Amino acid sequence: MIGGSIGLALKERKLAGEVIGVGRRAASLATAAQRGAVDRTTTNLISGVAEADFVIITTPVDMIPDTVLAVAKAAPQATITDAGSTKGQICREVRELAAKTPEITGLGNRFIGSHPLAGDHRTGPEYARADLFNSRTVVVTPEDDTPPGLIERVREFWTSLAASVELLSPEEHDRALAATSHLPHLVAAALASATPEEWLRLAATGWCDTTRIAAGDPGLWTQIFSQNRAAVLDSLKRFEHQLELFAQSIEIGDAAALSQNLQEAKRIRDALGD
Amino acid sequence: MIGGSIGLALKERKLAGEVIGVGRRAASLATAAQRGAVDRTTTNLISGVAEADFVIITTPVDMIPDTVLAVAKAAPQATITDAGSTKGQICREVRELAAKTPEITGLGNRFIGSHPLAGDHRTGPEYARADLFNSRTVVVTPEDDTPPGLIERVREFWTSLAASVELLSPEEHDRALAATSHLPHLVAAALASATPEEWLRLAATGWCDTTRIAAGDPGLWTQIFSQNRAAVLDSLKRFEHQLELFAQSIEIGDAAALSQNLQEAKRIRDALGD
Repeated sequence: MIGGSIGLALKERKLAGEVIGVGRRAASLATAAQRGAVDRTTTNLISGVAEADFVIITTPVDMIPDTVLAVAKAAPQATITDAGSTKGQICREVRELAAKTPEITGLGNRFIGSHPLAGDHRTGPEYARADLFNSRTVVVTPEDDTPPGLIERVREFWTSLAASVELLSPEEHDRALAATSHLPHLVAAALASATPEEWLRLAATGWCDTTRIAAGDPGLWTQIFSQNRAAVLDSLKRFEHQLELFAQSIEIGDAAALSQNLQEAKRIRDALGD
Repeated sequence: MIGGSIGLALKERKLAGEVIGVGRRAASLATAAQRGAVDRTTTNLISGVAEADFVIITTPVDMIPDTVLAVAKAAPQATITDAGSTKGQICREVRELAAKTPEITGLGNRFIGSHPLAGDHRTGPEYARADLFNSRTVVVTPEDDTPPGLIERVREFWTSLAASVELLSPEEHDRALAATSHLPHLVAAALASATPEEWLRLAATGWCDTTRIAAGDPGLWTQIFSQNRAAVLDSLKRFEHQLELFAQSIEIGDAAALSQNLQEAKRIRDALGD
Protein backbone atom coordinates (compact mmCIF):
# COMPACT_ATOMS: atom_id res chain seq x y z
CA MET A 1 0.00 0.00 0.00
CA ILE A 2 2.74 2.48 0.95
CA GLY A 3 5.16 1.53 -1.84
CA GLY A 4 2.41 1.48 -4.46
CA SER A 5 1.04 4.83 -3.27
CA ILE A 6 4.49 6.40 -3.53
CA GLY A 7 4.76 5.07 -7.09
CA LEU A 8 1.31 6.38 -8.07
CA ALA A 9 2.04 9.79 -6.54
CA LEU A 10 5.45 10.06 -8.26
CA LYS A 11 4.04 9.09 -11.64
CA GLU A 12 0.94 11.26 -11.41
CA ARG A 13 3.16 14.25 -10.62
CA LYS A 14 5.84 13.20 -13.15
CA LEU A 15 8.51 13.50 -10.47
CA ALA A 16 10.69 10.56 -11.52
CA GLY A 17 12.34 9.54 -14.79
CA GLU A 18 11.56 5.93 -14.01
CA VAL A 19 9.86 4.24 -11.05
CA ILE A 20 11.09 0.69 -10.43
CA GLY A 21 9.15 -1.64 -8.15
CA VAL A 22 11.34 -4.19 -6.40
CA GLY A 23 9.63 -6.93 -4.43
CA ARG A 24 9.57 -10.59 -3.50
CA ARG A 25 6.08 -11.52 -4.61
CA ALA A 26 5.51 -11.54 -8.36
CA ALA A 27 1.75 -11.20 -7.85
CA SER A 28 2.14 -7.96 -5.84
CA LEU A 29 4.52 -6.56 -8.43
CA ALA A 30 2.05 -7.43 -11.20
CA THR A 31 -0.73 -5.63 -9.32
CA ALA A 32 1.50 -2.59 -8.81
CA ALA A 33 2.27 -2.55 -12.54
CA GLN A 34 -1.40 -2.95 -13.52
CA ARG A 35 -2.30 -0.07 -11.20
CA GLY A 36 0.28 2.08 -13.00
CA ALA A 37 2.31 2.55 -9.82
CA VAL A 38 5.61 1.53 -11.45
CA ASP A 39 7.28 1.67 -14.86
CA ARG A 40 8.90 -1.72 -14.42
CA THR A 41 9.26 -4.38 -11.74
CA THR A 42 11.82 -6.95 -10.68
CA THR A 43 12.35 -9.45 -7.88
CA ASN A 44 16.10 -8.82 -8.12
CA LEU A 45 17.05 -6.16 -5.60
CA ILE A 46 20.59 -5.65 -6.92
CA SER A 47 19.66 -4.99 -10.52
CA GLY A 48 16.49 -3.17 -9.50
CA VAL A 49 18.25 -0.45 -7.53
CA ALA A 50 21.60 -0.36 -9.43
CA GLU A 51 21.01 2.95 -11.15
CA ALA A 52 18.59 4.46 -8.66
CA ASP A 53 19.25 7.86 -7.18
CA PHE A 54 16.48 7.52 -4.56
CA VAL A 55 15.35 4.28 -2.88
CA ILE A 56 12.46 3.92 -0.41
CA ILE A 57 12.36 0.67 1.52
CA THR A 58 8.81 -0.41 2.41
CA THR A 59 9.46 -3.92 3.76
CA PRO A 60 8.32 -5.09 7.21
CA VAL A 61 10.44 -3.37 9.89
CA ASP A 62 12.52 -6.48 10.70
CA MET A 63 13.95 -6.59 7.20
CA ILE A 64 14.74 -2.89 6.83
CA PRO A 65 18.33 -2.77 8.21
CA ASP A 66 19.59 -5.65 6.03
CA THR A 67 17.81 -4.17 3.05
CA VAL A 68 19.36 -0.74 3.64
CA LEU A 69 22.81 -2.38 3.58
CA ALA A 70 22.04 -4.37 0.46
CA VAL A 71 20.76 -1.25 -1.30
CA ALA A 72 23.76 0.78 -0.13
CA LYS A 73 26.08 -1.77 -1.75
CA ALA A 74 24.09 -2.15 -4.96
CA ALA A 75 23.32 1.54 -5.51
CA PRO A 76 26.39 3.55 -4.50
CA GLN A 77 24.83 6.88 -5.52
CA ALA A 78 21.40 6.45 -3.99
CA THR A 79 19.82 8.40 -1.17
CA ILE A 80 18.03 5.80 0.94
CA THR A 81 15.08 6.05 3.29
CA ASP A 82 12.40 3.70 4.60
CA ALA A 83 8.75 3.78 5.66
CA GLY A 84 8.88 1.68 8.82
CA SER A 85 6.60 2.26 11.81
CA THR A 86 9.51 2.11 14.28
CA LYS A 87 12.75 4.02 14.01
CA GLY A 88 15.12 3.55 17.01
CA GLN A 89 16.12 -0.08 16.48
CA ILE A 90 16.26 0.32 12.68
CA CYS A 91 18.59 3.32 12.85
CA ARG A 92 20.79 1.65 15.48
CA GLU A 93 21.04 -1.57 13.45
CA VAL A 94 21.83 0.24 10.23
CA ARG A 95 24.65 2.05 12.02
CA GLU A 96 26.00 -1.18 13.53
CA LEU A 97 25.77 -3.09 10.26
CA ALA A 98 27.52 -0.29 8.41
CA ALA A 99 30.33 -0.24 11.00
CA LYS A 100 30.88 -3.94 10.38
CA THR A 101 30.89 -3.58 6.60
CA PRO A 102 34.10 -1.85 5.55
CA GLU A 103 33.21 -1.62 1.85
CA ILE A 104 30.34 0.69 2.75
CA THR A 105 31.58 4.12 3.73
CA GLY A 106 29.57 7.16 4.58
CA LEU A 107 26.19 5.43 4.86
CA GLY A 108 25.27 8.09 7.40
CA ASN A 109 25.40 10.56 4.53
CA ARG A 110 22.95 8.48 2.48
CA PHE A 111 20.43 6.84 4.84
CA ILE A 112 17.91 8.55 7.07
CA GLY A 113 14.75 7.02 8.53
CA SER A 114 11.21 8.06 7.54
CA HIS A 115 7.76 7.12 8.79
CA PRO A 116 4.78 8.31 6.75
CA LEU A 117 1.73 8.55 9.06
CA ALA A 118 -0.56 7.36 6.31
CA GLY A 119 -2.28 4.14 5.37
CA ASP A 120 -4.47 1.94 7.51
CA HIS A 121 -4.84 -1.70 8.53
CA ARG A 122 -4.84 -2.90 4.89
CA THR A 123 -1.75 -4.06 3.00
CA GLY A 124 -0.95 -4.57 -0.69
CA PRO A 125 -0.72 -2.49 -3.87
CA GLU A 126 -4.45 -2.99 -4.54
CA TYR A 127 -5.05 -0.37 -1.83
CA ALA A 128 -2.48 2.12 -3.19
CA ARG A 129 -3.71 5.70 -3.81
CA ALA A 130 -1.89 8.61 -5.43
CA ASP A 131 -3.28 10.96 -2.76
CA LEU A 132 -2.38 8.80 0.24
CA PHE A 133 0.17 11.33 1.52
CA ASN A 134 -1.87 14.50 0.85
CA SER A 135 -1.78 16.63 4.00
CA ARG A 136 -0.34 13.72 5.99
CA THR A 137 2.66 14.00 8.27
CA VAL A 138 5.87 12.12 7.52
CA VAL A 139 8.27 11.88 10.44
CA VAL A 140 11.91 12.02 9.28
CA THR A 141 14.45 11.01 11.94
CA PRO A 142 17.89 12.63 11.71
CA GLU A 143 20.60 11.52 14.14
CA ASP A 144 23.26 13.75 15.71
CA ASP A 145 25.61 13.45 12.77
CA THR A 146 23.12 13.45 9.89
CA PRO A 147 24.21 16.04 7.32
CA PRO A 148 21.65 18.83 6.67
CA GLY A 149 21.79 18.13 2.91
CA LEU A 150 20.47 14.58 3.42
CA ILE A 151 17.66 15.82 5.65
CA GLU A 152 16.69 18.33 2.97
CA ARG A 153 16.73 15.77 0.12
CA VAL A 154 14.42 13.44 2.03
CA ARG A 155 12.22 16.28 3.23
CA GLU A 156 11.84 17.49 -0.36
CA PHE A 157 10.95 13.99 -1.49
CA TRP A 158 8.03 13.71 0.92
CA THR A 159 6.84 17.30 0.48
CA SER A 160 6.81 16.71 -3.30
CA LEU A 161 4.14 14.05 -2.54
CA ALA A 162 2.09 16.71 -0.66
CA ALA A 163 3.04 15.48 2.81
CA SER A 164 4.37 17.72 5.56
CA VAL A 165 7.57 16.65 7.28
CA GLU A 166 8.26 16.62 10.99
CA LEU A 167 11.81 16.05 12.26
CA LEU A 168 12.30 13.94 15.41
CA SER A 169 15.17 11.83 16.67
CA PRO A 170 14.55 8.08 16.20
CA GLU A 171 14.01 7.72 19.97
CA GLU A 172 11.57 10.64 20.20
CA HIS A 173 9.68 9.18 17.25
CA ASP A 174 9.35 5.85 19.03
CA ARG A 175 8.10 7.39 22.28
CA ALA A 176 5.52 9.52 20.46
CA LEU A 177 4.30 6.74 18.15
CA ALA A 178 4.04 4.33 21.07
CA ALA A 179 1.33 6.65 22.40
CA THR A 180 -0.39 7.62 19.15
CA SER A 181 -0.19 4.38 17.16
CA HIS A 182 1.22 1.32 18.93
CA LEU A 183 -0.81 1.62 22.14
CA PRO A 184 -4.08 2.17 20.20
CA HIS A 185 -3.34 -1.04 18.28
CA LEU A 186 -2.73 -2.96 21.51
CA VAL A 187 -5.93 -1.61 23.06
CA ALA A 188 -8.01 -2.30 19.94
CA ALA A 189 -6.72 -5.88 19.80
CA ALA A 190 -7.38 -6.54 23.49
CA LEU A 191 -10.87 -5.06 23.10
CA ALA A 192 -11.68 -7.30 20.13
CA SER A 193 -10.40 -10.34 22.03
CA ALA A 194 -12.41 -9.42 25.13
CA THR A 195 -15.72 -9.37 23.21
CA PRO A 196 -17.73 -12.58 23.73
CA GLU A 197 -18.40 -13.85 20.21
CA GLU A 198 -22.07 -14.59 20.85
CA TRP A 199 -22.57 -10.84 21.30
CA LEU A 200 -20.70 -9.69 18.19
CA ARG A 201 -24.03 -9.42 16.37
CA LEU A 202 -24.85 -6.58 18.77
CA ALA A 203 -21.70 -4.62 17.91
CA ALA A 204 -22.37 -1.33 16.11
CA THR A 205 -20.40 1.69 14.88
CA GLY A 206 -18.68 2.32 18.20
CA TRP A 207 -17.24 -1.18 18.49
CA CYS A 208 -16.29 -1.22 14.81
CA ASP A 209 -14.42 2.11 15.02
CA THR A 210 -12.69 1.29 18.26
CA THR A 211 -11.44 -2.14 17.14
CA ARG A 212 -10.83 -1.41 13.42
CA ILE A 213 -7.03 -1.45 13.54
CA ALA A 214 -7.07 -4.86 15.23
CA ALA A 215 -7.59 -6.14 11.66
CA GLY A 216 -3.99 -5.16 10.88
CA ASP A 217 -1.39 -7.75 9.91
CA PRO A 218 -0.41 -9.72 13.06
CA GLY A 219 3.10 -10.42 11.74
CA LEU A 220 3.86 -6.75 11.09
CA TRP A 221 2.51 -5.71 14.47
CA THR A 222 4.41 -8.41 16.34
CA GLN A 223 7.57 -6.85 14.90
CA ILE A 224 6.51 -3.31 15.78
CA PHE A 225 5.72 -4.19 19.41
CA SER A 226 8.97 -6.13 19.73
CA GLN A 227 11.04 -3.27 18.32
CA ASN A 228 9.41 -0.61 20.48
CA ARG A 229 8.87 -2.63 23.63
CA ALA A 230 9.99 -0.15 26.30
CA ALA A 231 8.06 2.84 24.94
CA VAL A 232 4.94 0.72 24.33
CA LEU A 233 5.01 -0.59 27.91
CA ASP A 234 5.44 2.98 29.21
CA SER A 235 2.43 4.13 27.20
CA LEU A 236 0.48 1.15 28.44
CA LYS A 237 1.16 2.20 32.04
CA ARG A 238 -0.24 5.68 31.33
CA PHE A 239 -3.32 4.07 29.75
CA GLU A 240 -3.86 1.66 32.65
CA HIS A 241 -3.66 4.56 35.07
CA GLN A 242 -6.35 6.47 33.15
CA LEU A 243 -8.52 3.37 32.88
CA GLU A 244 -8.23 2.88 36.63
CA LEU A 245 -9.46 6.46 37.24
CA PHE A 246 -12.52 5.78 35.08
CA ALA A 247 -13.12 2.39 36.73
CA GLN A 248 -12.92 3.85 40.23
CA SER A 249 -15.41 6.60 39.51
CA ILE A 250 -17.84 4.04 38.05
CA GLU A 251 -17.31 1.60 40.92
CA ILE A 252 -17.92 4.10 43.71
CA GLY A 253 -20.67 5.87 41.76
CA ASP A 254 -18.88 9.22 41.65
CA ALA A 255 -20.82 10.76 38.76
CA ALA A 256 -19.04 14.12 39.06
CA ALA A 257 -15.56 12.58 38.73
CA LEU A 258 -16.73 10.29 35.92
CA SER A 259 -18.27 13.16 34.01
CA GLN A 260 -15.12 15.24 34.44
CA ASN A 261 -12.93 12.36 33.19
CA LEU A 262 -15.21 11.91 30.17
CA GLN A 263 -15.11 15.64 29.46
CA GLU A 264 -11.32 15.66 29.56
CA ALA A 265 -11.19 12.69 27.15
CA LYS A 266 -13.65 14.46 24.83
CA ARG A 267 -11.59 17.65 24.92
CA ILE A 268 -8.48 15.76 23.79
CA ARG A 269 -10.40 13.78 21.16
CA ASP A 270 -12.18 16.85 19.81
CA ALA A 271 -8.79 18.52 19.19
CA LEU A 272 -8.22 16.09 16.31
CA GLY A 273 -11.56 16.39 14.51
CA ASP A 274 -13.38 13.52 12.86
CA MET B 1 -30.32 12.42 16.06
CA ILE B 2 -32.37 9.32 16.88
CA GLY B 3 -35.70 11.11 17.26
CA GLY B 4 -35.15 13.18 14.12
CA SER B 5 -34.13 10.10 12.14
CA ILE B 6 -37.26 8.26 13.22
CA GLY B 7 -39.34 11.24 12.07
CA LEU B 8 -37.57 11.45 8.70
CA ALA B 9 -37.93 7.70 8.14
CA LEU B 10 -41.63 7.72 9.09
CA LYS B 11 -42.40 10.65 6.83
CA GLU B 12 -40.34 9.42 3.88
CA ARG B 13 -42.22 6.12 4.04
CA LYS B 14 -45.56 7.80 4.77
CA LEU B 15 -46.07 5.51 7.77
CA ALA B 16 -47.73 8.02 10.10
CA GLY B 17 -50.76 10.29 9.80
CA GLU B 18 -48.91 12.94 11.75
CA VAL B 19 -45.46 13.02 13.36
CA ILE B 20 -45.26 15.28 16.41
CA GLY B 21 -41.91 16.30 17.82
CA VAL B 22 -41.97 16.95 21.56
CA GLY B 23 -38.88 18.42 23.17
CA ARG B 24 -37.50 20.88 25.67
CA ARG B 25 -35.30 22.99 23.43
CA ALA B 26 -37.11 25.18 20.92
CA ALA B 27 -33.98 25.41 18.76
CA SER B 28 -33.76 21.63 18.37
CA LEU B 29 -37.46 21.42 17.57
CA ALA B 30 -37.07 24.17 14.96
CA THR B 31 -34.18 22.27 13.35
CA ALA B 32 -36.23 19.05 13.32
CA ALA B 33 -39.09 20.93 11.63
CA GLN B 34 -36.78 22.57 9.06
CA ARG B 35 -35.32 19.16 8.26
CA GLY B 36 -38.83 17.85 7.60
CA ALA B 37 -38.55 15.29 10.41
CA VAL B 38 -41.85 16.32 12.04
CA ASP B 39 -45.24 17.72 11.02
CA ARG B 40 -45.48 19.89 14.12
CA THR B 41 -43.58 20.46 17.34
CA THR B 42 -44.34 21.40 20.91
CA THR B 43 -42.52 21.78 24.22
CA ASN B 44 -45.67 20.62 26.02
CA LEU B 45 -45.44 16.89 26.57
CA ILE B 46 -49.04 16.46 27.68
CA SER B 47 -50.68 18.10 24.69
CA GLY B 48 -48.02 16.73 22.35
CA VAL B 49 -48.74 13.09 23.04
CA ALA B 50 -52.46 13.37 23.95
CA GLU B 51 -53.79 11.77 20.78
CA ALA B 52 -50.74 9.69 19.88
CA ASP B 53 -51.09 5.98 19.26
CA PHE B 54 -47.30 5.41 19.29
CA VAL B 55 -44.74 7.31 21.38
CA ILE B 56 -40.94 6.85 21.22
CA ILE B 57 -39.00 8.43 24.06
CA THR B 58 -35.51 9.56 23.02
CA THR B 59 -34.45 11.51 26.10
CA PRO B 60 -31.23 10.79 28.05
CA VAL B 61 -31.60 7.48 29.92
CA ASP B 62 -32.03 9.10 33.36
CA MET B 63 -35.23 10.82 32.28
CA ILE B 64 -36.84 7.88 30.51
CA PRO B 65 -38.78 6.26 33.42
CA ASP B 66 -40.46 9.51 34.51
CA THR B 67 -41.21 10.35 30.89
CA VAL B 68 -42.78 6.91 30.31
CA LEU B 69 -45.09 7.55 33.26
CA ALA B 70 -45.98 11.05 32.09
CA VAL B 71 -46.74 9.77 28.58
CA ALA B 72 -48.75 6.85 29.96
CA LYS B 73 -50.97 9.31 31.83
CA ALA B 74 -51.30 11.81 29.01
CA ALA B 75 -51.82 9.30 26.19
CA PRO B 76 -53.99 6.49 27.52
CA GLN B 77 -54.12 4.69 24.17
CA ALA B 78 -50.48 4.91 23.19
CA THR B 79 -48.01 2.10 22.77
CA ILE B 80 -44.80 3.42 24.35
CA THR B 81 -41.17 2.53 23.77
CA ASP B 82 -37.83 4.25 24.17
CA ALA B 83 -34.40 4.37 22.52
CA GLY B 84 -32.15 4.32 25.59
CA SER B 85 -28.71 2.68 25.59
CA THR B 86 -29.41 0.85 28.86
CA LYS B 87 -32.45 -1.25 29.62
CA GLY B 88 -32.35 -3.02 33.03
CA GLN B 89 -32.66 -0.01 35.33
CA ILE B 90 -35.15 1.73 33.02
CA CYS B 91 -37.47 -1.26 32.86
CA ARG B 92 -37.23 -1.83 36.65
CA GLU B 93 -37.94 1.83 37.40
CA VAL B 94 -40.90 1.97 35.03
CA ARG B 95 -42.37 -1.06 36.78
CA GLU B 96 -41.79 0.43 40.24
CA LEU B 97 -43.19 3.83 39.30
CA ALA B 98 -46.25 2.22 37.73
CA ALA B 99 -46.85 0.14 40.88
CA LYS B 100 -46.85 3.37 42.92
CA THR B 101 -49.22 5.16 40.55
CA PRO B 102 -52.71 3.68 40.96
CA GLU B 103 -54.30 5.71 38.17
CA ILE B 104 -52.06 3.94 35.65
CA THR B 105 -53.15 0.40 35.06
CA GLY B 106 -51.73 -2.14 32.65
CA LEU B 107 -48.62 -0.17 31.74
CA GLY B 108 -46.91 -3.53 31.17
CA ASN B 109 -49.28 -3.95 28.22
CA ARG B 110 -48.22 -0.63 26.72
CA PHE B 111 -44.50 -0.07 27.46
CA ILE B 112 -41.59 -2.17 26.26
CA GLY B 113 -37.96 -1.07 26.03
CA SER B 114 -36.07 -0.63 22.74
CA HIS B 115 -32.47 0.18 21.89
CA PRO B 116 -31.68 0.96 18.25
CA LEU B 117 -28.00 0.14 17.59
CA ALA B 118 -27.63 3.10 15.28
CA GLY B 119 -26.21 6.60 15.47
CA ASP B 120 -22.77 7.62 16.58
CA HIS B 121 -21.09 10.10 18.94
CA ARG B 122 -23.03 13.07 17.51
CA THR B 123 -26.28 14.40 18.93
CA GLY B 124 -29.00 16.68 17.59
CA PRO B 125 -31.56 16.72 14.76
CA GLU B 126 -29.00 18.27 12.39
CA TYR B 127 -27.47 14.77 12.13
CA ALA B 128 -30.79 12.98 11.54
CA ARG B 129 -30.99 10.70 8.48
CA ALA B 130 -34.00 8.87 7.04
CA ASP B 131 -31.84 5.77 6.45
CA LEU B 132 -30.22 5.69 9.91
CA PHE B 133 -31.94 2.40 10.80
CA ASN B 134 -31.46 0.65 7.43
CA SER B 135 -30.09 -2.85 8.11
CA ARG B 136 -29.38 -1.89 11.72
CA THR B 137 -30.35 -3.99 14.71
CA VAL B 138 -32.86 -2.75 17.25
CA VAL B 139 -32.88 -4.69 20.52
CA VAL B 140 -36.40 -4.92 21.98
CA THR B 141 -36.51 -6.10 25.61
CA PRO B 142 -39.63 -8.01 26.66
CA GLU B 143 -39.98 -9.02 30.30
CA ASP B 144 -41.56 -12.24 31.60
CA ASP B 145 -45.10 -10.87 31.50
CA THR B 146 -44.91 -8.76 28.34
CA PRO B 147 -47.86 -9.67 26.10
CA PRO B 148 -46.89 -11.01 22.64
CA GLY B 149 -49.11 -8.42 20.97
CA LEU B 150 -47.05 -5.56 22.40
CA ILE B 151 -43.80 -7.19 21.30
CA GLU B 152 -45.24 -7.52 17.79
CA ARG B 153 -46.42 -3.91 17.58
CA VAL B 154 -43.01 -2.58 18.57
CA ARG B 155 -41.21 -5.07 16.34
CA GLU B 156 -43.36 -3.99 13.39
CA PHE B 157 -42.61 -0.36 14.13
CA TRP B 158 -38.84 -0.85 13.90
CA THR B 159 -38.96 -3.24 10.96
CA SER B 160 -41.09 -0.68 9.09
CA LEU B 161 -38.02 1.60 9.35
CA ALA B 162 -35.87 -1.15 7.73
CA ALA B 163 -34.24 -2.26 10.99
CA SER B 164 -34.11 -5.86 12.15
CA VAL B 165 -35.29 -6.64 15.65
CA GLU B 166 -33.53 -8.82 18.21
CA LEU B 167 -35.38 -9.80 21.42
CA LEU B 168 -33.40 -9.94 24.67
CA SER B 169 -34.38 -9.51 28.30
CA PRO B 170 -33.39 -6.10 29.73
CA GLU B 171 -30.61 -7.77 31.75
CA GLU B 172 -29.22 -9.74 28.79
CA HIS B 173 -29.26 -6.54 26.76
CA ASP B 174 -27.23 -4.76 29.41
CA ARG B 175 -24.62 -7.53 29.69
CA ALA B 176 -24.18 -7.70 25.91
CA LEU B 177 -24.07 -3.93 25.35
CA ALA B 178 -21.59 -3.53 28.21
CA ALA B 179 -19.18 -5.55 26.05
CA THR B 180 -20.06 -4.21 22.61
CA SER B 181 -20.72 -0.54 23.37
CA HIS B 182 -20.09 0.65 26.92
CA LEU B 183 -16.65 -0.92 27.37
CA PRO B 184 -15.45 0.41 23.98
CA HIS B 185 -16.49 3.89 25.08
CA LEU B 186 -14.59 3.55 28.36
CA VAL B 187 -11.48 2.28 26.57
CA ALA B 188 -11.64 4.99 23.90
CA ALA B 189 -11.95 7.69 26.56
CA ALA B 190 -9.06 6.34 28.64
CA LEU B 191 -6.94 6.09 25.49
CA ALA B 192 -7.65 9.69 24.53
CA SER B 193 -6.82 10.85 28.06
CA ALA B 194 -3.60 8.81 28.11
CA THR B 195 -2.24 10.54 24.99
CA PRO B 196 0.29 13.28 25.82
CA GLU B 197 -1.07 16.38 24.10
CA GLU B 198 2.28 17.41 22.63
CA TRP B 199 2.15 14.23 20.53
CA LEU B 200 -1.41 14.63 19.25
CA ARG B 201 -0.04 16.11 16.04
CA LEU B 202 1.45 12.66 15.36
CA ALA B 203 -1.89 10.88 15.70
CA ALA B 204 -3.17 9.35 12.46
CA THR B 205 -6.07 7.17 11.28
CA GLY B 206 -5.50 4.47 13.89
CA TRP B 207 -5.68 6.83 16.86
CA CYS B 208 -8.64 8.69 15.34
CA ASP B 209 -10.65 5.50 14.75
CA THR B 210 -9.84 4.00 18.13
CA THR B 211 -10.75 7.12 20.12
CA ARG B 212 -13.62 8.45 17.95
CA ILE B 213 -16.45 7.61 20.36
CA ALA B 214 -14.66 9.46 23.17
CA ALA B 215 -16.15 12.55 21.52
CA GLY B 216 -19.60 11.40 22.71
CA ASP B 217 -21.63 13.50 25.15
CA PRO B 218 -20.03 13.17 28.64
CA GLY B 219 -23.39 13.70 30.37
CA LEU B 220 -25.13 10.93 28.46
CA TRP B 221 -22.26 8.51 29.02
CA THR B 222 -22.01 9.28 32.73
CA GLN B 223 -25.65 8.14 32.96
CA ILE B 224 -25.05 5.02 30.88
CA PHE B 225 -22.05 3.89 32.97
CA SER B 226 -23.94 4.61 36.19
CA GLN B 227 -26.98 2.64 35.06
CA ASN B 228 -25.00 -0.36 33.86
CA ARG B 229 -22.23 -0.33 36.43
CA ALA B 230 -22.02 -4.04 37.28
CA ALA B 231 -22.00 -5.30 33.70
CA VAL B 232 -19.53 -2.60 32.61
CA LEU B 233 -17.13 -3.52 35.42
CA ASP B 234 -17.44 -7.22 34.47
CA SER B 235 -16.59 -6.40 30.86
CA LEU B 236 -13.71 -4.26 32.01
CA LYS B 237 -12.28 -7.25 33.92
CA ARG B 238 -12.36 -9.36 30.73
CA PHE B 239 -10.63 -6.55 28.85
CA GLU B 240 -7.94 -6.07 31.51
CA HIS B 241 -7.25 -9.79 31.43
CA GLN B 242 -6.75 -9.71 27.65
CA LEU B 243 -4.61 -6.60 27.87
CA GLU B 244 -2.43 -8.33 30.48
CA LEU B 245 -1.88 -11.28 28.12
CA PHE B 246 -0.70 -8.90 25.38
CA ALA B 247 1.48 -6.94 27.81
CA GLN B 248 3.14 -10.09 29.14
CA SER B 249 4.02 -11.38 25.71
CA ILE B 250 5.54 -7.99 24.81
CA GLU B 251 7.37 -7.70 28.13
CA ILE B 252 9.02 -11.14 27.98
CA GLY B 253 9.57 -10.90 24.23
CA ASP B 254 7.40 -13.94 23.40
CA ALA B 255 6.81 -13.19 19.73
CA ALA B 256 4.93 -16.46 19.13
CA ALA B 257 2.40 -15.75 21.90
CA LEU B 258 2.07 -12.11 20.84
CA SER B 259 1.48 -13.06 17.23
CA GLN B 260 -1.12 -15.64 18.25
CA ASN B 261 -2.93 -13.09 20.43
CA LEU B 262 -2.95 -10.58 17.57
CA GLN B 263 -4.24 -13.23 15.17
CA GLU B 264 -7.08 -14.11 17.52
CA ALA B 265 -8.01 -10.41 17.84
CA LYS B 266 -7.92 -10.04 14.05
CA ARG B 267 -10.12 -13.12 13.61
CA ILE B 268 -12.79 -11.61 15.89
CA ARG B 269 -12.47 -8.16 14.30
CA ASP B 270 -12.60 -9.52 10.74
CA ALA B 271 -15.91 -11.26 11.53
CA LEU B 272 -17.59 -7.84 11.58
CA GLY B 273 -16.19 -6.36 8.34
CA ASP B 274 -15.17 -2.76 7.86
